[in-house]
Amino acid sequence: MKALFQTFEDLASPSQGTQRIPLLRAELARRGLDGFIVPRADEHQSEYVPPHAERLAWLTGFTGSAGTAVILKDKAAIVVDGRYTLQAAQQVDGALLTVVPQAETTAEAWIEAELGSATLGYDPWLHTASAVEALAKAVSRADGSLVPVESNPVDAIWADRPAPPCAPIALQPQALAGEDAGAKLERLRERLAKGRLDGLVVSDPQNLAWLFNIRGGDVAHTPLALGYALVPREGRPVLLMEAAKISNEVGAVLGEVAEIAPPERLAEEIGRLGPADGRIRIDAATGAQELDGLVEASCRVADRGPDPLTLMKAVKNGAEIAGTRAAHLRDGLAVTRFLRWLAEEAPKGDVGEIGAVEALETFRRETGLLRDVSFPTISGSGPNGAIVHYRVTHASDRKLAAGELYLVDSGAQYQDGTTDITRTVAIGQPSAEMRERFTRVLKGHIAVARAVFPKGTSGAQIDSFARRPLWEAGLDFDHGTGHGVGSYLSVHEGPQRISKLGTVALEPGMILSNEPGYYKAGAYGIRIENLILVETREIAGGERQMLGFETLTLAPIDLALVEPTLMESGEIAWLDAYHARVREALSEGLDEATRDWLAVATRPLGERRPA
Amino acid sequence: MKALFQTFEDLASPSQGTQRIPLLRAELARRGLDGFIVPRADEHQSEYVPPHAERLAWLTGFTGSAGTAVILKDKAAIVVDGRYTLQAAQQVDGALLTVVPQAETTAEAWIEAELGSATLGYDPWLHTASAVEALAKAVSRADGSLVPVESNPVDAIWADRPAPPCAPIALQPQALAGEDAGAKLERLRERLAKGRLDGLVVSDPQNLAWLFNIRGGDVAHTPLALGYALVPREGRPVLLMEAAKISNEVGAVLGEVAEIAPPERLAEEIGRLGPADGRIRIDAATGAQELDGLVEASCRVADRGPDPLTLMKAVKNGAEIAGTRAAHLRDGLAVTRFLRWLAEEAPKGDVGEIGAVEALETFRRETGLLRDVSFPTISGSGPNGAIVHYRVTHASDRKLAAGELYLVDSGAQYQDGTTDITRTVAIGQPSAEMRERFTRVLKGHIAVARAVFPKGTSGAQIDSFARRPLWEAGLDFDHGTGHGVGSYLSVHEGPQRISKLGTVALEPGMILSNEPGYYKAGAYGIRIENLILVETREIAGGERQMLGFETLTLAPIDLALVEPTLMESGEIAWLDAYHARVREALSEGLDEATRDWLAVATRPLGERRPA
Repeated sequence: MKALFQTFEDLASPSQGTQRIPLLRAELARRGLDGFIVPRADEHQSEYVPPHAERLAWLTGFTGSAGTAVILKDKAAIVVDGRYTLQAAQQVDGALLTVVPQAETTAEAWIEAELGSATLGYDPWLHTASAVEALAKAVSRADGSLVPVESNPVDAIWADRPAPPCAPIALQPQALAGEDAGAKLERLRERLAKGRLDGLVVSDPQNLAWLFNIRGGDVAHTPLALGYALVPREGRPVLLMEAAKISNEVGAVLGEVAEIAPPERLAEEIGRLGPADGRIRIDAATGAQELDGLVEASCRVADRGPDPLTLMKAVKNGAEIAGTRAAHLRDGLAVTRFLRWLAEEAPKGDVGEIGAVEALETFRRETGLLRDVSFPTISGSGPNGAIVHYRVTHASDRKLAAGELYLVDSGAQYQDGTTDITRTVAIGQPSAEMRERFTRVLKGHIAVARAVFPKGTSGAQIDSFARRPLWEAGLDFDHGTGHGVGSYLSVHEGPQRISKLGTVALEPGMILSNEPGYYKAGAYGIRIENLILVETREIAGGERQMLGFETLTLAPIDLALVEPTLMESGEIAWLDAYHARVREALSEGLDEATRDWLAVATRPLGERRPA
Repeated sequence: MKALFQTFEDLASPSQGTQRIPLLRAELARRGLDGFIVPRADEHQSEYVPPHAERLAWLTGFTGSAGTAVILKDKAAIVVDGRYTLQAAQQVDGALLTVVPQAETTAEAWIEAELGSATLGYDPWLHTASAVEALAKAVSRADGSLVPVESNPVDAIWADRPAPPCAPIALQPQALAGEDAGAKLERLRERLAKGRLDGLVVSDPQNLAWLFNIRGGDVAHTPLALGYALVPREGRPVLLMEAAKISNEVGAVLGEVAEIAPPERLAEEIGRLGPADGRIRIDAATGAQELDGLVEASCRVADRGPDPLTLMKAVKNGAEIAGTRAAHLRDGLAVTRFLRWLAEEAPKGDVGEIGAVEALETFRRETGLLRDVSFPTISGSGPNGAIVHYRVTHASDRKLAAGELYLVDSGAQYQDGTTDITRTVAIGQPSAEMRERFTRVLKGHIAVARAVFPKGTSGAQIDSFARRPLWEAGLDFDHGTGHGVGSYLSVHEGPQRISKLGTVALEPGMILSNEPGYYKAGAYGIRIENLILVETREIAGGERQMLGFETLTLAPIDLALVEPTLMESGEIAWLDAYHARVREALSEGLDEATRDWLAVATRPLGERRPA
């Protein structure tokens, strides 16, 4: 297995734009276009884009996970969010491309201001219908024209463009998936009928993987096989997937529930999906605008809305929950071994951010079951910890130093479950302010962990519980409190989330992260993240159906950063009970020295506090 | 001044439908329509509908504040929400009209199921554009046709239909309004420019009243003058209003900032609003669909969205805030006199719900400044208190009895401010459960009152603070925590609200209610409501711009219902400080006996509790 840790320097050679942007302009001129928009996106709006779809990086040198370039005849911009303004400025040729902070000017606003009456091309496979609507509005206000291209002009000039990924597909065993594809299809069809839909285009590879109980390897960190499925309300679904990905054995199993067709047949098969004048659902979040055209070309109605599979997949069944518990026990052992290593090595002054990532990966690898990390580890010491989406580079790598905080946000893909955990650790003696801020973050974390709420409550209604202890001190953090997590699938999964945007009702079986934080720019960052599982709660004397959370993640929280006098007795009781659970669950799987370390690391706070 | 208290029996004679629905069917047949939809609405989507627009009540006998009748050739339904299913069943002729609970079947769903290929008429003045869209979808799914009518067929058969209201307009003095109409218009024009809008149709009479500093008397409980205004980005606005409402003196003042035109000129004036091909904003919440047609008939673009005045009006200026403080002091004196009267009279067993309303109204009237109650008082004893929108009738009136709770939700319109207050009072000895539930509601109320939150926070992010103490016991309440309140305007004002639907950021100067509750069906209801004002908060050592609330309402909270052992020390400190403020603010304005009563009613809890 190749090393999982990579920095972005490993991934791309910056400043490609100097030669390539003029080449693109020539290609656009040949096609009669004045400009072209290059998003960081593939046909499925994937979080991790496969190499052949890394057009933005190839064209501009910018390797961040989000950004949009707009290339016009005599000017060009790359619009990036706050995480990436610095990185983009380092990576792109400033003479050719202006780096535009998204918070000030969105790509649409830049187009509206700069396009004039020119003709802007876009690739209808790389934008959703609603994204094209927003683009069209901007272009129309600028008095220009927006034109879909038949083939992507970047591909035309990208001589050594990699082939699309073609990793073999494995079946997720029934013991881990908990429900066979036939049963899932039956439930899906009921939902289609209820929604008066005649068919569904499955454009999200996460939903494809879940529906057919398959896992692939086409993108980084998430076991996805890129492809499409077409599911009619009645009749056999069609799975559009490269034959080379499908072994005879896998094909035989899939063939029981679906026709398998090559991806090139997508347009033709969409034309046969459902009855004439049927209503075909296209996922609003991941379905390319081109899909609407394909549906409408066959006189069917393209119905944009959520893919019902997204919610079905979010609610984990008993087998998936058992799997995630096993994965979290395994991962907790690895993380605890890492934390003990860190406690011993870091004070010596020789541990760097990259070294820590490598050590953590080694401990996870030693479980013998690691498939991949679930995302590039965030390993930030001191001021780097305050950069929410920090990704260490050889240039930024710094030693973990005494008196500083170290923040490590990481996760693993095991076949039975996906993990995601953040711990913040004091190296040497933390300041009183660090302890006070950490304790406020912990109080918010505990408020979410202990929350009890009626059925129908959304994550938006819980999010501020995590913020209140910070708000009371005039502080806050600028990200959501939690995201959904998949079952050996994406570590970022919808629709459930704990954020002011999370309007979907939480349901028993959903997995989310609980990760409030606090970031002091230039100084330190704090985040405490556990995964939590929504479960039903019986309350004596209660009148409503109530829900709560079971914390899945098992690893100690650094007591050196806890200020007990700021905590209420119920909060201390939660922390002590959590640590007791961690100790009991992990001790058996640890060597004696680590077990002893863990006993101290999880000692009860309640005992040393006056009543 | 006429008595303000009225029951719905005073307002309508039920069971009109027996004769009138056949008359309407005949009229529809004459017009070639198979059906017609009759909402409880006027042209402005007003909360209180003027008598000439009470078509639903006239046609069916149903006098509730919300409901929709759909009259087809051979069947008809009236769709009402949970508050009104019982009342509707009592008031309408069941042989002619089926009462349909909205929670089970919306009007659109009923139409979709029952219309078939028939032609359904609707009055485009009584539905917003988005409501018509929803209707059209339902009608199209039923395979029917939806047709706007040129005149309302109910009016054609309503021989003795009242004339539209024509109450005289008064100017709201500058000392209370705080900003003259010219300055408001200037700020509005800046917002139109920022939104790239060329003009605005003001369809909400609340916004009309605020913009021109006028108050009228066209509907109950809210000092509105029904009419329209057309505000171009450049040039003079036109105020469309019956001349009979405008005295020479008022006309002279209004004439300084606007042209005044009769309402019949609306279509013609809209045709002149803004430049040719201009973009005209129509309020999504209150603008009738017909307005879109009028704008588009003159080749302008109808742009549906929020009327910017709604947000401008919600942020009160210094004069309005001073006015509301004065109004709350005055109202607090009246309510406190009432509460003392109640404490003395109710135990004798002779006070009924209607008697209590009349007493409360008398105390408010004795201030000499009461203009109106701000809504029909909710006065519920025992099980009636559990009906959230209870409105006492002579039939439902019951005595306040020992061992029961009494809930009274009321408000006043004074020229300097609008009030809204709910108190729940124990008659005799409350049960332990009542005290426990009341204390949980109070803890929620205090959590909102004490909340500190960053600029940009919406009411949705605060709503669950009010619920948490109930959630912890498996309880909840089924209404929002708070609504916006106007300044001698509507007691229900947008866009600010504390509810999961309240996504607008709270701003300093906004007034809201804080009214968590708990309702035990068939037993008792609890609600504690104060109005609160959003204000800025300085926090030592804080990093963000923070906001908090000042509680405006001044009246004691019944300590007989507070269980101190369930409260945290900070909550007790809040309650004691609030009561101290109430005592200090009101004592001077009370007679000695009431002052003595108030001193006991507001005694500190903290003193009698162990540390």
